[in-house]
Parts: sequence; structure tokens; C-alpha cells
Amino acid sequence: MDLAHMAPYEVRKLIRDKKITGQTSGMCLGFAQANLAILPKELAYDFLLFTQRNPKPCPILEVSDVGDPYLKKIAKDCNIATDIPKYRIYEKGVLTGEYNSVERFWRDDLVAFLIGCSFSFESELLDSGITVRHIEEHKNVPMYLTNIDCEPAGVFSGKMVVSMRPLPRDQIVKAVNITSSMPRVHGTPIQIGHPEQIGIKDINKPDFGDAVTVKPGETPVFWACGVTPQSIMMNSKPDFCITHAPGHMLITDIKNTDLKF
Amino acid sequence: MDLAHMAPYEVRKLIRDKKITGQTSGMCLGFAQANLAILPKELAYDFLLFTQRNPKPCPILEVSDVGDPYLKKIAKDCNIATDIPKYRIYEKGVLTGEYNSVERFWRDDLVAFLIGCSFSFESELLDSGITVRHIEEHKNVPMYLTNIDCEPAGVFSGKMVVSMRPLPRDQIVKAVNITSSMPRVHGTPIQIGHPEQIGIKDINKPDFGDAVTVKPGETPVFWACGVTPQSIMMNSKPDFCITHAPGHMLITDIKNTDLKF
Repeated sequence: MDLAHMAPYEVRKLIRDKKITGQTSGMCLGFAQANLAILPKELAYDFLLFTQRNPKPCPILEVSDVGDPYLKKIAKDCNIATDIPKYRIYEKGVLTGEYNSVERFWRDDLVAFLIGCSFSFESELLDSGITVRHIEEHKNVPMYLTNIDCEPAGVFSGKMVVSMRPLPRDQIVKAVNITSSMPRVHGTPIQIGHPEQIGIKDINKPDFGDAVTVKPGETPVFWACGVTPQSIMMNSKPDFCITHAPGHMLITDIKNTDLKF
Repeated sequence: MDLAHMAPYEVRKLIRDKKITGQTSGMCLGFAQANLAILPKELAYDFLLFTQRNPKPCPILEVSDVGDPYLKKIAKDCNIATDIPKYRIYEKGVLTGEYNSVERFWRDDLVAFLIGCSFSFESELLDSGITVRHIEEHKNVPMYLTNIDCEPAGVFSGKMVVSMRPLPRDQIVKAVNITSSMPRVHGTPIQIGHPEQIGIKDINKPDFGDAVTVKPGETPVFWACGVTPQSIMMNSKPDFCITHAPGHMLITDIKNTDLKF
């Protein structure tokens, strides 16, 4: 199966039927993938406000209606409780299980938040001739917990997670320009070249994902990352929360190019 | 008093002391002004989701903490119940009163939503040599109720309100470019040159504000408008809602230029 060139609804069906249970990286090229956080309605206001106050790590692509697992905007005929290959359940901030479907955990008071993912801007960077090192090295993107406090909202607070891509000097401005036109998938970098200023001690030891080669003369460039909500859940410890497992994303019907201004 | 060149906190003090009770147009040049909607917490999630689903008419600049009338981000030492020159109270969609302060109506369950205003981009248009007709003619901007359904959210639904500025052919692209960099104050136009396509029957009869001259060869250009929330309140009829009176805005400490990317 040529998953890279299949239509999103076809791959979502394979995922729903549990024929795909692994990472979604590289599937349905050109289409946006989304991070997931599902919370009970009583916490949904605080979390929606959190995303509003922190649009760079948490750019919202869609919020489901309360109790309705079907999305209406970014993916057609999509049940958010079945159409992601691997989910995580956190209870009071502790990861209590991983599942290929969360249909049996669905409740009438749940709300799903779909959040933009840097896969979308990476595809634009590649198209512009910019090397994306972790793709080149067949690794997961390196991610770091920073010392940057997100703006708190209600019960939710915590530090921002960033992703890093090393770039040669003459590609940095181009990368800033390209990502500036895509605020719904994290937008412009939040730090260029000074990891210590955002609390990153060793660039070779990411907190999530894999370390990648930083070649002589290259500058590490940091973008706000969609893993931030998981760090927030671990810090804020809501009673119940469902997320995707890292790398196991929702494949949407939205083209990356439609996320540009 | 030179209100045009005073600092925002000085003018807010005059407003708080009821020394200013009129429209804020032209005050504190260069600083953003904001639209207001105040709702009880039980409706705040639906309204926040409404703004998230309708970012062009309802770009959020700040949401207050529940029950706290003091803003934290866009204006310093600012009590949102006293620092606007004229408020309106709507009950079940009906305007029941106008007040110079709503302090005595404040409750522990109220949440204030501050929404970007086109005054901010008009200042950028003027700086770029683009004529803004209603300013030239000393009128209020013409606004129209359209046939465009906003994306509903919970109890909130209704039609979008737009503002109109007539432009000569050779200034339209420039105006699109300038406003595209300011999504937090309504961003790009939603219609250029075809009022009938968005349900506007007579451009000389705006639903709000004043009619302005459209000269031969000029094209009417329409932007989403911050009066939309008032049209939504009138349509959705929440039990209780406070807004600003049209033209009587919150003067923030945010520079218009800081609302650009």
C-alpha cells in the first residue's frame, strides 16, 4: 500500500479497522496531521482559554461539539475516538494506558481539541529546499521541555515544549518567512541559536524524540511544539484526559497549503 | 486636553472618573482599541468557542479571569467595569439600558472578552497613503448585516456584520496586504466589489454607522466587523450580557504595530 499517496479518508478507514496502528509520519503527503487532547466539558473552558492564550504551542484546528465524537470541519466522517492509531489516557497526570481505540471510554461530556502539528510546515520547508535533519536521518524530531512558562488559564499551567531543527546560516531567514505564514501550525520560531536562554542544557539530550546531528556552522532553531498540551496535562493533573500517542496523529482532509494565509 | 496624544492609562483614568463619556475614536493615536462582550461563566465556553470558530469577526485580544474585572495583558490597572465610556446591557437579546459604568452590575461569575477593532488597521492604511473615506468625511464607518452565517457554537449563532471602505482600484491590493498582516484586528477583506453576493441590497443604507460616498471608479471593500458579537447576542438572546456601546471602546496599552506579525 502506498500510504504516502493515499487519500486521508482511505488511511483513516485503515486506522479505524486497526489495519494501521503505528506512527503516521509520511502518510498522505500534503495533508495536515493534528495533535489531540480530549477533556471533560467541566475542564473544556479552561483548556480552550489556555489554547487561546498560548496560540503558538496550541493552535486549534477544530474543537468538537460536547459529547459528539464526529468532527465537522477538518475531516469528513471522522470519529475521533477510533480514527487515530494510538491513544494515551492520563488520569491525574499519570499515563494509565495506551489504546488503539478509545470508543469504550467515550462519554457524553467529552470534548476533543485538534491542534496543529509541525509536520505541516516541514513539508513546506522541504518544498523550499530546506533540509529537515530528523527526516534526513529517519528519526523523530528532537523536542525539549523549556523554562518558558505558558500563560496559565484556570487549572492549566506548565512549561512550553519546543521542537528543534538545525539550519545552515543562509536558510534561517527563509525558514522564518515560510513558517510565519503558517500560524495555525506553530508559526515562527520562538528561539534561534541560544538553547541555554530557554533552559535547554544539552541539545544532544532531548526530553522527547531523538537527538539529531548539528553540523559545524549550523544553528539550532526552536519552534513551539504540539507536545506542549501533554506536558500541561502532566503538570496540571486533570482527573481524566485522552491524547494521541506521540507521532500517532489524526490525518486530516486539510491541505498543508490551506493552512497558509 | 490633547486626547489624541495622551497615554492610554491617562485617558482610561478620565473615563473611569466620568470626565469622558463619549466616543473614543481618534483618542490615543497608535494604540489599539477593543470591543467588549461580558457574559456569565455558564455561557463563556460557548462564546469562547464561537470566537475560536469565527476569528475574522471575533479576534480575541484578551479574556479576563472569571469574576475578575481587572485585565492582565492588554491594559494595565484597568477595571473593565469602569474603564469604557459607555456600556450596553442586553437581557434575552433586548437592549435594556446604557450606563457609564457597570460596576454595580458586576458579579463573581462574569467573564470579559476583549475583541480586536478595525480602528487598528485603519491607522495602518492611513500611514500607507490609503484614504479611509468615513474618516475623511468625519462619519462613523458604514456597517452591514450580511447573509453570511457565522459558524455556530453551543447557544451562539447568527449572521456576520461587515464594515465597508470604498477604495480606488490601485489601492485594493495594498489594503489586502496591509490587513493580511493583522489577523488580530479582522485581517483580510471577506468580499471585494460584490455587496449583493453577501446579501447587501443597498450600499447607501448601512445597518449600523453612516453611509459614505463611493466615488466613480471606486470599489467597495468589506471586512469582518467587531459589531458581529452584538448581532449574535441579539440573535441568540442570552439572559444577560454587557457590551460596549458602539464607538465607545476600551483604549488598550497595545500599539497597533504590535498587532502585526
